[in-house]
Amino acid sequence: MSQSFNTIALIGKYQSPDVAGAVLSIASFLRERGLAVWIEQGTASSIGLVGEFATVTYDEIGAQADLAVVLGGDGTMLNTARRLSEHAVPLVGINQGRLGFLTDIPRKEALNKLAEILDGRFVEEARTMLDAEVVRGGQRVFHTLAFNDVVVNKGDFGRMIEFDLSIDGEYVYTQRSDGMIITTPTGSTAYALSANGPILHPTVGGIALVPLCPHALTARPITLPDSCRIAIELLSPHDARIHFDGQTRFDAHAGDVVRITRSPKVVRFLHPEGYSYFAMLRGKLHWSATPRLP
Amino acid sequence: MSQSFNTIALIGKYQSPDVAGAVLSIASFLRERGLAVWIEQGTASSIGLVGEFATVTYDEIGAQADLAVVLGGDGTMLNTARRLSEHAVPLVGINQGRLGFLTDIPRKEALNKLAEILDGRFVEEARTMLDAEVVRGGQRVFHTLAFNDVVVNKGDFGRMIEFDLSIDGEYVYTQRSDGMIITTPTGSTAYALSANGPILHPTVGGIALVPLCPHALTARPITLPDSCRIAIELLSPHDARIHFDGQTRFDAHAGDVVRITRSPKVVRFLHPEGYSYFAMLRGKLHWSATPRLP
Amino acid sequence: MSQSFNTIALIGKYQSPDVAGAVLSIASFLRERGLAVWIEQGTASSIGLVGEFATVTYDEIGAQADLAVVLGGDGTMLNTARRLSEHAVPLVGINQGRLGFLTDIPRKEALNKLAEILDGRFVEEARTMLDAEVVRGGQRVFHTLAFNDVVVNKGDFGRMIEFDLSIDGEYVYTQRSDGMIITTPTGSTAYALSANGPILHPTVGGIALVPLCPHALTARPITLPDSCRIAIELLSPHDARIHFDGQTRFDAHAGDVVRITRSPKVVRFLHPEGYSYFAMLRGKLHWSATPRLP
Amino acid sequence: MSQSFNTIALIGKYQSPDVAGAVLSIASFLRERGLAVWIEQGTASSIGLVGEFATVTYDEIGAQADLAVVLGGDGTMLNTARRLSEHAVPLVGINQGRLGFLTDIPRKEALNKLAEILDGRFVEEARTMLDAEVVRGGQRVFHTLAFNDVVVNKGDFGRMIEFDLSIDGEYVYTQRSDGMIITTPTGSTAYALSANGPILHPTVGGIALVPLCPHALTARPITLPDSCRIAIELLSPHDARIHFDGQTRFDAHAGDVVRITRSPKVVRFLHPEGYSYFAMLRGKLHWSATPRLP
Repeated sequence: MSQSFNTIALIGKYQSPDVAGAVLSIASFLRERGLAVWIEQGTASSIGLVGEFATVTYDEIGAQADLAVVLGGDGTMLNTARRLSEHAVPLVGINQGRLGFLTDIPRKEALNKLAEILDGRFVEEARTMLDAEVVRGGQRVFHTLAFNDVVVNKGDFGRMIEFDLSIDGEYVYTQRSDGMIITTPTGSTAYALSANGPILHPTVGGIALVPLCPHALTARPITLPDSCRIAIELLSPHDARIHFDGQTRFDAHAGDVVRITRSPKVVRFLHPEGYSYFAMLRGKLHWSATPRLP
Repeated sequence: MSQSFNTIALIGKYQSPDVAGAVLSIASFLRERGLAVWIEQGTASSIGLVGEFATVTYDEIGAQADLAVVLGGDGTMLNTARRLSEHAVPLVGINQGRLGFLTDIPRKEALNKLAEILDGRFVEEARTMLDAEVVRGGQRVFHTLAFNDVVVNKGDFGRMIEFDLSIDGEYVYTQRSDGMIITTPTGSTAYALSANGPILHPTVGGIALVPLCPHALTARPITLPDSCRIAIELLSPHDARIHFDGQTRFDAHAGDVVRITRSPKVVRFLHPEGYSYFAMLRGKLHWSATPRLP
Repeated sequence: MSQSFNTIALIGKYQSPDVAGAVLSIASFLRERGLAVWIEQGTASSIGLVGEFATVTYDEIGAQADLAVVLGGDGTMLNTARRLSEHAVPLVGINQGRLGFLTDIPRKEALNKLAEILDGRFVEEARTMLDAEVVRGGQRVFHTLAFNDVVVNKGDFGRMIEFDLSIDGEYVYTQRSDGMIITTPTGSTAYALSANGPILHPTVGGIALVPLCPHALTARPITLPDSCRIAIELLSPHDARIHFDGQTRFDAHAGDVVRITRSPKVVRFLHPEGYSYFAMLRGKLHWSATPRLP
Repeated sequence: MSQSFNTIALIGKYQSPDVAGAVLSIASFLRERGLAVWIEQGTASSIGLVGEFATVTYDEIGAQADLAVVLGGDGTMLNTARRLSEHAVPLVGINQGRLGFLTDIPRKEALNKLAEILDGRFVEEARTMLDAEVVRGGQRVFHTLAFNDVVVNKGDFGRMIEFDLSIDGEYVYTQRSDGMIITTPTGSTAYALSANGPILHPTVGGIALVPLCPHALTARPITLPDSCRIAIELLSPHDARIHFDGQTRFDAHAGDVVRITRSPKVVRFLHPEGYSYFAMLRGKLHWSATPRLP
């Protein structure tokens, strides 16, 4: 299937000296294979690249590239996934330093692994996204997609917030807490994990709700089917700040309703053959670590 | 659809004085509706019932009853579900005292709610079961179904056990701990919850692994898709005791492998219309409780 | 010892209609006993009290009252304790509604219990306070006492903060998290408890550090001797918001150091005879609640 | 003060080939310094040592040695501390492999560090012990000291146990759980930590109670002053197994009462100058580990 990858876009972490060389090296490698090589324009200007390769916008990448290669950490991949979320272009992640959850190809193996992927030897993985909107007085006042999580948070208001949770239109509970994380399986190993949320394997069709410092000692995380409609209504007089993937935020007012469903769109990742979610978890979470008494 | 319920079996908690009257009252009510009424034989002998109603075995109930009405607590329902697990007879739960997760009809409303169900006004729910076997030297030495959970435990051996976890044939990690709970969504509100496991909504297609006092501080519960094959191999010299729904157990030796998959069978519950999983959780987990500083 | 209570100050929750009647009733009761009755001036103006009783400031209460009776919830008591923290006047807490951790006398028993206390039948309890300062470039830029906790928090900045923790001048660790709660035993049942902190009995000479959503999965709460000096230095570029008892806050900058020690001052509570810390915990934390499967 | 260390006892992990060489090397080193060198008799026989050094019992070491040097891991030190618990001989721990919480001198630095300690350059640390007894029908049926923890456990009985907790003679609560850990500060980084217990600095005068899989979701660990008297009474029909430091156990029956106080005895550790409890924690708990998303 290598012929299906004709146009390859490169996206690198901005303001990162190490990334410049990696982008150029990979760009040259791809051009030598006879492929069209595009550089995302912010990446190009960040590394001072002029003229040698086509520079394009995220939208152009989304619309026309066959593959996007992302160089950086998980933050760069998260940002890219969000920007390309309306499109179906598959992503490959290459990490300069410590491997990420999402950027699983080490820089040193980048050319070999890319060659394998271009030759059709890869594993494709589809990751769920959340569709989130804020509704005020019946009107949508904000809308975005989230790949990791939506976090309803007390923000700078210091004190607990209070909100009603409804699932599929049914009232579930009123919670007083610092906030709530609504997470995809992908986000379950990010912020939610630090709040004692459960890890969800990417193929579980679930969305987890993880309370932040809940007032009630009986509050527990719950995993819901990802077909459900989640609504959080801020109770007066509680305002809240809502974070989407830790990258975008919205200041919501008392009475606002945050509505979350699974997006019909997915993020497509291509991994080299032999990729293992469990091996990645094992490495990242130090599962072999044995810190206590023998 | 009321005509589909012609033969109704009654099963009551043994050695429970309160249950006797309830069984008789419901049996009379059903007979008056012209239905065939069977009493499970252990129930009949426990309440000293002679002659008035047919007494039958669990297998006869499973094979020929159209509905089994269970009177008691969740323990009675758990036991019944296990005994009828090879069959598809639907279950209805009636609770004398505090409502259970599984026995959701209060005794006082039993006749009204049963009438509704017999008239076809009910919600049917299918709950997942686990198929579990212990393999020793390539041979199956034990097999059972579990409705709540399989618990691999250090048993009376006092010290931590050590085991390898594999998923779909892939090595995941070696864990030292007091043991591991493998739970269905139904079991996620039982023992697993006391070990800090996540709540799984019954319609999530997942199986959760919840470690018991793990040695590694980075160990966390994980929810896997219920299509996966889970294997736990006891490492020498660690023996373990394996509990199934807290009702059956097996003493496993070092080298034994516990294999767990989702059973193709399900448990069918009938609830009165208006049944709400969230309302049940809210009541049982005291989610409205607010035990701390205002 | 009843003669030692000659001047009694009353402090009530502001803007709380229920409190007005209670304040008047208690004031009359005390006057009938021949005691001098003072009303805190904010309380007096909140309930529209004119002329009948002396109205005084917190400082006057602190300097000259023999006893302060607080009517309201734990928030009112917390506020009072902070305002009177430089003084040694003992406090008694009366609660209109649900009993608090700190306001342990029910409104209905207020007169009887006050009579007992005035007659010398009481248990005195001394609670620890924290002395907290923020140091910037070697200069103290903020100072206060905290009765419950000091919370170093990411505030409205949305992302994790990073800081160094030192104890008695020794570097302990660098933590990335949403923040850190430094709590007295009194505060251990307040916000810290919702962040999975340990309960500390009031007579344990300890200060607990409870991380908020720490990045490292191996982070755990730790209880230190209350003789230690705790310092948290914000690492560039991380600013943070620091909350004291959830009532006062300070915006700290990267490089600022928060220094915390046990204050030489204590808060004195008087309880009716028969007061039990454990009974209070049992009631507040619903320890008899049994929400799961039998 | 080096003259105070005249008789040094060596204790090594049994059945451990690496330890033999280390014991001999240290014994020779000490003899060359003109000290009397004793080898614990089980150690001597485990390494096949004949004649060269005096072999003595634990009791002789306790009664007459000036210092006991322990070679092995934390398990060996725990065993030694228990066996010498009636005596006041100070302990030094040397670890062949990965450093322990209690055996803090690496094998390679053993001679240098021992020389320093013998020269009086050391930090002495006193660690609390628990005095535990089981009372049946008013009679003591078991008594021991515990250095880490006392664990009341469901043992091989499979199901939850139920017990009453009393503190200083006051009823605190009835708990249903897998059991309870009662831990010293030293034990707080051992088994209790895997059950989500709080870390207690060794100089905090506290004893922590850490429930094991408690039925009530509101149950939380609590730290009590170490002056208190703790009693756990097994409620009928619940038997339990009680573990002391994971090394000794006792099968208790329904109605038995486990009584725990702080022992007047302490364990004395000598550390080389520069020893840091926090450095040890940091190393053992991997506090610098950062396993999640950047």
